[in-house]
Amino acid sequence: MPTAEILSQGDEVVTGQVADTNAAWLSTRLTDLGFSVMRHTSVGDRLDDLCDVLSAAATRADVCIGTGGLGPTQDDLTAEAVAQTFDRPLQFDPEAMNRIEGHYRRFGREMPEVNRKQAWLPTGSHRLDNLWGTAPGFSIQTDRAVMMFVPGVPREMRKMFDHAVLPLLREHFDLKRTRLVTLKTTGIGESNLQERIGAFAYDDVTLSFRTHLPENHIKLRFAPEASAAYIERVTHDIADRIGSPLFGIDSGTLAEVVGEAVQARGETLATAESCTGGRIASMFTAIPGSSAWFTEGAVTYANQAKTRVLGVETSALEKHGAVSESVARQMAVGIRTRADTTYGLATTGIAGPGGGTEEKPVGTVHIAVATPTDVLHRRLSLGGDRTRIQTLSAAAVIDTLRRHLQNR
Amino acid sequence: MPTAEILSQGDEVVTGQVADTNAAWLSTRLTDLGFSVMRHTSVGDRLDDLCDVLSAAATRADVCIGTGGLGPTQDDLTAEAVAQTFDRPLQFDPEAMNRIEGHYRRFGREMPEVNRKQAWLPTGSHRLDNLWGTAPGFSIQTDRAVMMFVPGVPREMRKMFDHAVLPLLREHFDLKRTRLVTLKTTGIGESNLQERIGAFAYDDVTLSFRTHLPENHIKLRFAPEASAAYIERVTHDIADRIGSPLFGIDSGTLAEVVGEAVQARGETLATAESCTGGRIASMFTAIPGSSAWFTEGAVTYANQAKTRVLGVETSALEKHGAVSESVARQMAVGIRTRADTTYGLATTGIAGPGGGTEEKPVGTVHIAVATPTDVLHRRLSLGGDRTRIQTLSAAAVIDTLRRHLQNR
Repeated sequence: MPTAEILSQGDEVVTGQVADTNAAWLSTRLTDLGFSVMRHTSVGDRLDDLCDVLSAAATRADVCIGTGGLGPTQDDLTAEAVAQTFDRPLQFDPEAMNRIEGHYRRFGREMPEVNRKQAWLPTGSHRLDNLWGTAPGFSIQTDRAVMMFVPGVPREMRKMFDHAVLPLLREHFDLKRTRLVTLKTTGIGESNLQERIGAFAYDDVTLSFRTHLPENHIKLRFAPEASAAYIERVTHDIADRIGSPLFGIDSGTLAEVVGEAVQARGETLATAESCTGGRIASMFTAIPGSSAWFTEGAVTYANQAKTRVLGVETSALEKHGAVSESVARQMAVGIRTRADTTYGLATTGIAGPGGGTEEKPVGTVHIAVATPTDVLHRRLSLGGDRTRIQTLSAAAVIDTLRRHLQNR
Repeated sequence: MPTAEILSQGDEVVTGQVADTNAAWLSTRLTDLGFSVMRHTSVGDRLDDLCDVLSAAATRADVCIGTGGLGPTQDDLTAEAVAQTFDRPLQFDPEAMNRIEGHYRRFGREMPEVNRKQAWLPTGSHRLDNLWGTAPGFSIQTDRAVMMFVPGVPREMRKMFDHAVLPLLREHFDLKRTRLVTLKTTGIGESNLQERIGAFAYDDVTLSFRTHLPENHIKLRFAPEASAAYIERVTHDIADRIGSPLFGIDSGTLAEVVGEAVQARGETLATAESCTGGRIASMFTAIPGSSAWFTEGAVTYANQAKTRVLGVETSALEKHGAVSESVARQMAVGIRTRADTTYGLATTGIAGPGGGTEEKPVGTVHIAVATPTDVLHRRLSLGGDRTRIQTLSAAAVIDTLRRHLQNR
């Protein structure tokens, strides 16, 4: 397995002003491509440190990808550091200059003089054109390593990886892509998932967990030579062990899976939220084209809004309180009826940190889904802070509809 | 200035399964305390790599903080690597064992046998007790460096930094805390902010920018010896140069600033959202205690919901279209009247990626704020993807109310 290292340059990284998400993104891509990523190193805007890291990485790894330090200011030292470390003096690249000037021309602006610096690249380097910003990247070949340098702006870095870095990697290495299958679950914690999956009997498959609250993902990484039939067999074995918390395989988010299912059936939905305060509506409306199946949402925080907007009976609010099964059911039915949709989803609960009582502590949430024939209800007792309680409540009501649609 | 390095151990970091947020968090804290953070290094679960990094860091830095690799499994190699690198064989620490067993006892469980490993610490190390998990940390003193090792679980790492690492740092170094002032803005990009601030004439103050969409923050870092009067003078100079986009100094988020102002005046607000789809309501309801001033929100995606729920005239929808000044104004007035609040906030626009026309391209958004005496309106032309358009539209309408409340 060829080895790889990731380097990042920038004071903003070592002082903690930004988390180095580039390193994680690049590592995922390189691991997928079959590289063994050995090390990430970040250094600030200091030439000596940068040279030190470059010369060490060049002897340790087959591929090094460096991000940042390609801008026009004097803090941007990558080209200079490569020139010094590998004895390749900077040379003016007229084509690089043309492209930088062209970038400014397209926006109707004149290129500031400082940007000329970006056209000076190490002797013998291969220019990596940047169609998404001004800073060109470049690559050099050392005795052992292919070293590639791209901008630190995540959007430009990602585009350049796909368009310039990947083709170069394919030239230098016989890449056999591993196959990744992602099983997506919600409403179950990692340790319970581990218990359900039990002893993992496939030595040639790597299993890992990743939490994206409110979802828990299980990733299965198969060797390049694994057959489609084998991948399917293992995937289904694991899916069966997980059972009903599984909402999708290589699918979109929980809200996307539910939105697609509702749309495929030619149905519609609307939401009535108290404790989740608009979170469910925004999960749905974040999806492009959601207006085909999501028509409206009510955020009824005040009790009088629950009555005026959703028709919740004052007597139910008085007798059972706003956080009750009865009110959740009336909210779901109320929004379904008034919005004239197939489904109505509702939440009412205590997200905290204040407002809890002995009978109804913080984390008590009632959720309800009104369908054409029934009203499904669940009472949740959630732990954690306000954000966690709101996030998990929103997911629980969406997942209740998902289970109904998938008959699980 | 004493120097520091951050080390992370774990295959999950170098393969990109998790972004190393610990490094950014620790760097911010160490920078605040007056350390110059020189380097971050992450390596996987390989003893040789770990030993290599440890011995190099020990000669380069005055402080090294390592995260991860303290768990009970055979992948957890930190103690072993320290023992080998610095010739300090592992010794059994009975007190560490007691505490690990106690942790399990508190949860009514028996300690698995594998956890015994966590009580073996390098000879001559100082144990750092972990009250939030099972893995104890430890520190050692080398010729140059104080090296401290804490768990990789962010919650445990942060608690241990405050309770165990910080006191040790204070013992070893004469720490004078720098003073950080954060100026928060919205509705203005970084390059325009830079232009407004112009030449920065304070050599003894470090200025940096940080984008948290939809907010842009300017951080001023003052030397420990800076007087309160000087800090105030510089802060107000910069605040004056920024002008109206500034919504707070060392304040909460934009939604929190507006919520506090509304509550302080004994007023209330409600929202009517089309293109932002519940985002504004969830920004407000994410705030603890928001029910004191936020009463309800309507997410009226479908045109008939705009009419039924908010009273928008069908004729306006037909004549001007849903994305128009007239409809935005009627939505704001409609929610204010029906919810009986002091303010009504409304958005209607095209968040994309589909739905744009030549006259109203994607990114066209009308926002309106109804006050007791007036309706404020703005038309926005936003670039970027759906998430960016929704986020910036939500911020723009909240900021319109903020400017009204602050008379800016």
